[in-house]
Amino acid sequence: MRLQVPGYELLAQANTLQYSFSGTGVNVASAMTKLGHDGYLVTKLPDNPLGDAAISFLQRLGIGKDFISKGGKYIGMYFLENGFGQRSSRVTYTNRLESTFNTADISDYDMDLIAEHTDVIHFCGITLAMTDKVRESMKVLAKKVKEKGGIVCFDCNYRPSLWDGGYAEAKPHYEDMLSLADIVMMNEKDALYILGMKTERVTREEQLQDLIPKVAEKYNIQTIAGTHRGINKDNTHSLLGYMYKDRTFAFSEKMTFSVYDRIGAGDAYTSGILHGELSGFSPEKTVQFAASAGMLACTIVGDTPMSTEAEILSAMSGMIEDIKR
Amino acid sequence: MRLQVPGYELLAQANTLQYSFSGTGVNVASAMTKLGHDGYLVTKLPDNPLGDAAISFLQRLGIGKDFISKGGKYIGMYFLENGFGQRSSRVTYTNRLESTFNTADISDYDMDLIAEHTDVIHFCGITLAMTDKVRESMKVLAKKVKEKGGIVCFDCNYRPSLWDGGYAEAKPHYEDMLSLADIVMMNEKDALYILGMKTERVTREEQLQDLIPKVAEKYNIQTIAGTHRGINKDNTHSLLGYMYKDRTFAFSEKMTFSVYDRIGAGDAYTSGILHGELSGFSPEKTVQFAASAGMLACTIVGDTPMSTEAEILSAMSGMIEDIKR
Amino acid sequence: MRLQVPGYELLAQANTLQYSFSGTGVNVASAMTKLGHDGYLVTKLPDNPLGDAAISFLQRLGIGKDFISKGGKYIGMYFLENGFGQRSSRVTYTNRLESTFNTADISDYDMDLIAEHTDVIHFCGITLAMTDKVRESMKVLAKKVKEKGGIVCFDCNYRPSLWDGGYAEAKPHYEDMLSLADIVMMNEKDALYILGMKTERVTREEQLQDLIPKVAEKYNIQTIAGTHRGINKDNTHSLLGYMYKDRTFAFSEKMTFSVYDRIGAGDAYTSGILHGELSGFSPEKTVQFAASAGMLACTIVGDTPMSTEAEILSAMSGMIEDIKR
Amino acid sequence: MRLQVPGYELLAQANTLQYSFSGTGVNVASAMTKLGHDGYLVTKLPDNPLGDAAISFLQRLGIGKDFISKGGKYIGMYFLENGFGQRSSRVTYTNRLESTFNTADISDYDMDLIAEHTDVIHFCGITLAMTDKVRESMKVLAKKVKEKGGIVCFDCNYRPSLWDGGYAEAKPHYEDMLSLADIVMMNEKDALYILGMKTERVTREEQLQDLIPKVAEKYNIQTIAGTHRGINKDNTHSLLGYMYKDRTFAFSEKMTFSVYDRIGAGDAYTSGILHGELSGFSPEKTVQFAASAGMLACTIVGDTPMSTEAEILSAMSGMIEDIKR
Amino acid sequence: MRLQVPGYELLAQANTLQYSFSGTGVNVASAMTKLGHDGYLVTKLPDNPLGDAAISFLQRLGIGKDFISKGGKYIGMYFLENGFGQRSSRVTYTNRLESTFNTADISDYDMDLIAEHTDVIHFCGITLAMTDKVRESMKVLAKKVKEKGGIVCFDCNYRPSLWDGGYAEAKPHYEDMLSLADIVMMNEKDALYILGMKTERVTREEQLQDLIPKVAEKYNIQTIAGTHRGINKDNTHSLLGYMYKDRTFAFSEKMTFSVYDRIGAGDAYTSGILHGELSGFSPEKTVQFAASAGMLACTIVGDTPMSTEAEILSAMSGMIEDIKR
Amino acid sequence: MRLQVPGYELLAQANTLQYSFSGTGVNVASAMTKLGHDGYLVTKLPDNPLGDAAISFLQRLGIGKDFISKGGKYIGMYFLENGFGQRSSRVTYTNRLESTFNTADISDYDMDLIAEHTDVIHFCGITLAMTDKVRESMKVLAKKVKEKGGIVCFDCNYRPSLWDGGYAEAKPHYEDMLSLADIVMMNEKDALYILGMKTERVTREEQLQDLIPKVAEKYNIQTIAGTHRGINKDNTHSLLGYMYKDRTFAFSEKMTFSVYDRIGAGDAYTSGILHGELSGFSPEKTVQFAASAGMLACTIVGDTPMSTEAEILSAMSGMIEDIKR
Repeated sequence: MRLQVPGYELLAQANTLQYSFSGTGVNVASAMTKLGHDGYLVTKLPDNPLGDAAISFLQRLGIGKDFISKGGKYIGMYFLENGFGQRSSRVTYTNRLESTFNTADISDYDMDLIAEHTDVIHFCGITLAMTDKVRESMKVLAKKVKEKGGIVCFDCNYRPSLWDGGYAEAKPHYEDMLSLADIVMMNEKDALYILGMKTERVTREEQLQDLIPKVAEKYNIQTIAGTHRGINKDNTHSLLGYMYKDRTFAFSEKMTFSVYDRIGAGDAYTSGILHGELSGFSPEKTVQFAASAGMLACTIVGDTPMSTEAEILSAMSGMIEDIKR
Repeated sequence: MRLQVPGYELLAQANTLQYSFSGTGVNVASAMTKLGHDGYLVTKLPDNPLGDAAISFLQRLGIGKDFISKGGKYIGMYFLENGFGQRSSRVTYTNRLESTFNTADISDYDMDLIAEHTDVIHFCGITLAMTDKVRESMKVLAKKVKEKGGIVCFDCNYRPSLWDGGYAEAKPHYEDMLSLADIVMMNEKDALYILGMKTERVTREEQLQDLIPKVAEKYNIQTIAGTHRGINKDNTHSLLGYMYKDRTFAFSEKMTFSVYDRIGAGDAYTSGILHGELSGFSPEKTVQFAASAGMLACTIVGDTPMSTEAEILSAMSGMIEDIKR
Repeated sequence: MRLQVPGYELLAQANTLQYSFSGTGVNVASAMTKLGHDGYLVTKLPDNPLGDAAISFLQRLGIGKDFISKGGKYIGMYFLENGFGQRSSRVTYTNRLESTFNTADISDYDMDLIAEHTDVIHFCGITLAMTDKVRESMKVLAKKVKEKGGIVCFDCNYRPSLWDGGYAEAKPHYEDMLSLADIVMMNEKDALYILGMKTERVTREEQLQDLIPKVAEKYNIQTIAGTHRGINKDNTHSLLGYMYKDRTFAFSEKMTFSVYDRIGAGDAYTSGILHGELSGFSPEKTVQFAASAGMLACTIVGDTPMSTEAEILSAMSGMIEDIKR
Repeated sequence: MRLQVPGYELLAQANTLQYSFSGTGVNVASAMTKLGHDGYLVTKLPDNPLGDAAISFLQRLGIGKDFISKGGKYIGMYFLENGFGQRSSRVTYTNRLESTFNTADISDYDMDLIAEHTDVIHFCGITLAMTDKVRESMKVLAKKVKEKGGIVCFDCNYRPSLWDGGYAEAKPHYEDMLSLADIVMMNEKDALYILGMKTERVTREEQLQDLIPKVAEKYNIQTIAGTHRGINKDNTHSLLGYMYKDRTFAFSEKMTFSVYDRIGAGDAYTSGILHGELSGFSPEKTVQFAASAGMLACTIVGDTPMSTEAEILSAMSGMIEDIKR
Repeated sequence: MRLQVPGYELLAQANTLQYSFSGTGVNVASAMTKLGHDGYLVTKLPDNPLGDAAISFLQRLGIGKDFISKGGKYIGMYFLENGFGQRSSRVTYTNRLESTFNTADISDYDMDLIAEHTDVIHFCGITLAMTDKVRESMKVLAKKVKEKGGIVCFDCNYRPSLWDGGYAEAKPHYEDMLSLADIVMMNEKDALYILGMKTERVTREEQLQDLIPKVAEKYNIQTIAGTHRGINKDNTHSLLGYMYKDRTFAFSEKMTFSVYDRIGAGDAYTSGILHGELSGFSPEKTVQFAASAGMLACTIVGDTPMSTEAEILSAMSGMIEDIKR
Repeated sequence: MRLQVPGYELLAQANTLQYSFSGTGVNVASAMTKLGHDGYLVTKLPDNPLGDAAISFLQRLGIGKDFISKGGKYIGMYFLENGFGQRSSRVTYTNRLESTFNTADISDYDMDLIAEHTDVIHFCGITLAMTDKVRESMKVLAKKVKEKGGIVCFDCNYRPSLWDGGYAEAKPHYEDMLSLADIVMMNEKDALYILGMKTERVTREEQLQDLIPKVAEKYNIQTIAGTHRGINKDNTHSLLGYMYKDRTFAFSEKMTFSVYDRIGAGDAYTSGILHGELSGFSPEKTVQFAASAGMLACTIVGDTPMSTEAEILSAMSGMIEDIKR
């Protein structure tokens, strides 16, 4: 649950909040729905007014509730204060370890049913950082989906503050997930720091081109993709996407654009990669499509991408229309 | 009636709308009022709470209701979702052909009374695209105003989506209005596409200088004015105004500026031209005044220009004051 | 689409609106969803941002979109100004006859598919007042559902302003629907005015008990139910529900209660009757459950009932708790 | 300028205000406009953004600005915190004595022009409490209107906190205005306290019937009207209207009704009396019309009455409709 | 932290929340401040933006932060959906057991410093239900204040859902606090259920008069006070206050009044008792003052009483003023 | 009291205002509080709901009310309309000369008590422009603080519109304050225009370096500091800070940054200088810290700086973080 101070006030100045329900899983599932697929969330939510509100919100985004179990008591929350110019945005978490999701048991989910109905499943490194129970459920589900012929996608999304034991604690769990995954979202920093790989190259671009093929080979991953992002002084961001597949790199143009809400752009990029792969786009088209999806997500209110395939293809063409009438 | 999603949300995300009543006629009449003239709107509105709200809104802008007749059932509406950066704004229309205005009969207006009291009357090409009834009323009224010695202004404002028959259908009606008009708002594209004129020049500037004098001669138009507008990548617009009169062109500086609400800038430009002509400004001053009025309209919330002559003259000087205390 | 002035201002005073998507179909489908059933809407919506917003809104309520077709251009709308005390609420309609739904062809719906998957289908007399096309689609669908063993429910909901030809025009269409229906929502006024039946009784209660059995017999209707509602001077309403089944009347208590939003209470009553019938409640429990559902709907913001079975059963007990912690 | 805390918060709790421009003059002029007359305000407003906002607001209400002069520096303001139940509403004034209106000179108004165009003019006892300059302007204008054949209306509206010298200071000025007035709004308390009249009767009703005829005779007043108002424990008010004319009293029913915004009800009553007199209603109809207008004004947001003649006549019939569709 | 859905929407309908920081401690401290005393809160808050916002909010209420320590990670929260009429309000808690306050150690507070500066200290039974650490801190602090000559006040405030072990678990802790307290807020139900006392009386009033003197004697309590509250069908509440001191009961009138925000009324009553005792009011005046304070708190937005002594005394007089100008 | 139109509407377009209580004194006191000092305001406020709201607001900022006296009737106010791009912000004042503060007598303040408890006191040139009474109070207080060993800070803040007699009237009062001050905020323009000093240098930078040392010597001022600010075309501002102490200049980098709310940046700069001086920072660190504080104040909603020392030090490092999690 995201609780956001409207506009640019601080929590100590304002007295209202806007709330929504998001997270990598919600964002990717919703984005896939907008791109014409059926999206579902695998989670557990409390059976109280907050859980009801979450389900209403997910349904509004078109996400199916078939794989959501109910029970437990709490929902994870964070407060967001928007930054402006030189002042950064701030996120304040409430206690998430006791949330319904993080205390859910593997028996709360019908893993076989989920695996049966899944074409692609997406996991996130933030979830991997939670509890042993959560990690166990992730790995079991990934295996079952793979056995049933589904595609497993894993986004490394390493957050230092969530791993008390640092990279050393994280590495074995990341290796488990990489070995199970068909599509992985990462860049050279994940290879260097989480996986502890070495390179003699200096620039980020060179390191990427050196390390990603090694990761693909070692963990037998079909497709690896990711971005290099930059924050510029004039309230714009830059984004360069890449995709590595069949021993070949494809790169998007380096795009520079104004940003309204920066959260969720990475998830839009992921969904663009998944959509391109499922639609049989060429790697070049896929990576450019994904980068354009990420750019558009930055122009949308809230974490969750809302753009259709037609809108992303139109943004790829690069023209800014004044008004669509 | 403009129904606008506040901020940058989509209709599928929000649950509130801001409403106002606008359109080229409202914008020009209101702008003239702010410039010290008496402004009236010739229209028909339904005799229900929506019609009452429209009249309240027009009155708030200082527009007189003397020439508004009441009756019929509906008011034309559009929904506006604000774009941001690379995401365009979107307009969604409701059915306008059955609106009170578009189904009004010529007998709903006291044409002679209107003509008697009018110094300048302004018509818009969007209205010309509506119905035969509306077109007939326009032409009759233009003739009557002209006979009584009033000035007839016509803004080409061609909208492709409104003419099922394309330029071919539009051309005779545009020619009728051009023949009746003393002041015309247009640029070289209108000459090329609506009027089907030809030129061998290549750049927009050259085409303008080639074609506009021919239009003025052919339709016997005293003053023709218009703009070249550009949308830049960094959330700014550019505006270059021109005016052709007495066989001579006058141009404004090319102005570049930040944009808050892009709708209505053209109408502010038109009102600047009208005010300059009525006030006996030199063509150079008129065109610069009109361009500055257009620029300021982009800094104002809503479609409708709100700037006074003093404020526009101050903007012409080009200095940005920090705060006016 | 309901466009409501917030609070108690008039359209001529305010400048914001709250929007939602409702109507008898939405309300009954949503209420059934809250009561634990799967709810779907059979309709056609435009393929534009308004249609997208409508679908998002329906999904938020838990209503399935499987039977919604897309196309056409417009959506029916009404503006609502809330009354206060002695000042009535006001509804202003936009042109609905040209809406996507009212211009939809029978071929826009996959009638056989719908009939196959339907346990209960609900039709409304407001829809019956629209166009010949709409009426034809209704009757075809009712027949197909009946043939496949589904239950057909029809709510008379006669609105004088929608029938230019008055009762005479409406009667044959109502008789068609009554002959097809298993469950009918109506009271003695519908029998007297639409069906032109006669009675010598004087009070509403006596007329009801005289006429409803005759209607049930003539049109071979299994269950007829409805309410007598009253508006009191002190901002409260009164509600007395009845149900006639197996030649026997059951009545609820006469309930008197404070009202927050009066629209949609009848639809909540209908859904209570349907739920009671589907759940095998006794007629006494069903009618009291339905009346309590109607009462709770008046305490909820918006047209659409939001109460669960547990909440309605708790309200039936009549105790007001201070705060549920 | 009214600056109102929204909802029921205190100034020390909230951080937003709603603003409008009102006062007895605005309310009566606006109410007359809604009843089909042309309404104008005689005032002076500063030539700054606050003055512009005031004029926009008056225009929105349909009030003409022909008799408004501009200049000076300030506008009178008050802050309003809404009461609830046993907690009273609170008004906090800013310094009004230095406002543009209160420092205006008689030469700021074109008294002859105003007198020429006036059918009825309305003065208020609150204005009479301001400054000597203001009082002088009032009396000069009343005389001129009377000379030109216009009707002079005066509402006693005595506010103790505004007269430092109490009744003794006020009496001569009130006597001047009463002598100039054709229609006076007052009740027995004004006769007792301001005019210092005596009665041996005990109940308010008896005192009214004893004193009002004496006032009419002494000051040669054609029509006197007013109300007895009561505040009840259950958030309702009571209102009994009277009118004395041609040596005869007419009374309205005693009406009891829910109250949304209590400010401005007296002004609505006044406008009802004026409209009845101008329309040739019988005294019985006039007083009932005026009381109904006062009742409806209590159901409207803001100080300013918004009801049309048709709406007031409908309220006189006493039926509460559920929803006007 | 209270997170409240504005108006009457459900969490599943709305998307904004209003937040404030309250609780019995905040409410009593703030109310005492409004009554002219210096109020402080003894608590621990996290050193993050939520903690900063809490301190800003407390300061706004005039509560001193001298005895607030900082550290830990979380703040206890609850969500509030307002009921309407027959629909109850709902409170949904987040996990409070891990909050900074509930995990604070006794060493986080400078107990001696607090005891030195305290005239009256107030403890609440809700806090007593938290953790052993919290209970230990409470008892230590109560003892130290008593030793230094301060007055100890304890409000029983028993909440069944917070004591897993029920009355049996709670009783010894309540007995400890009662033995330490000079002033206790409770009624006969606390004596019956928590303390397990017996009575043969039947009505609540008789039970109260039988049991409270026994409690006072057994635990050596100087003053016991409390209320009997009732919720009526017409959106009003009833309140009867009592105080037992010097072996004598004093009762307030039974007051009936409209309610805007019901939370915090008991805390206002408590602060009225404390103020009366500190100010040397007669018991009759104290109990009537406290009941009036409780009534006014129900007319104020938010949990926290905002009324001054003058306002409460004015409410005691029972007259409803229209508007305070 | 600042009354601000939300967003970018004009007063003539909007109908709500946001209010806060600010001014140089509030801003500096609040900023010092955020930097870890105790801040107090010396002022007088009316004993009414506006005064209560002001005190609540000041307390929220952490400012102590110990030196605020109560009484009088009015509070100074200004209305703010936000500019956008080429359209300047506008400030409209209400009558401030009759405010409680400006009519306060020297006896309203316990000067000795204030002087006793003050380490640093800050005075502003805007206050110096008010009334003779205010000026007298300022000078008496400055002397007393100095005698007790406190530091006197004076910010020239010359506002032409407040001095009817221009520089000639202002000069002696400025000289009095400069002679009393230890720290002065000014730049070369104050020396040239208020103090009438001469220089032959041309650029602002040279003039500054020529004149400031002379001012320091003539009035025996320990530290002089100030800024050069520029407004750029692309919605950014530039800021260069300087400090002169011990016969040496220190300069900050010239910073360019996006601006959200420009009011109060100078006061943030002042508080940065004071904090640096009190903390024993080097002049180079102090001036860079102050400039960074000014920059961050431009990214904060409202006049009043809200940044802590840690946040300012982080901004000095110049990196923009995406999101602080």
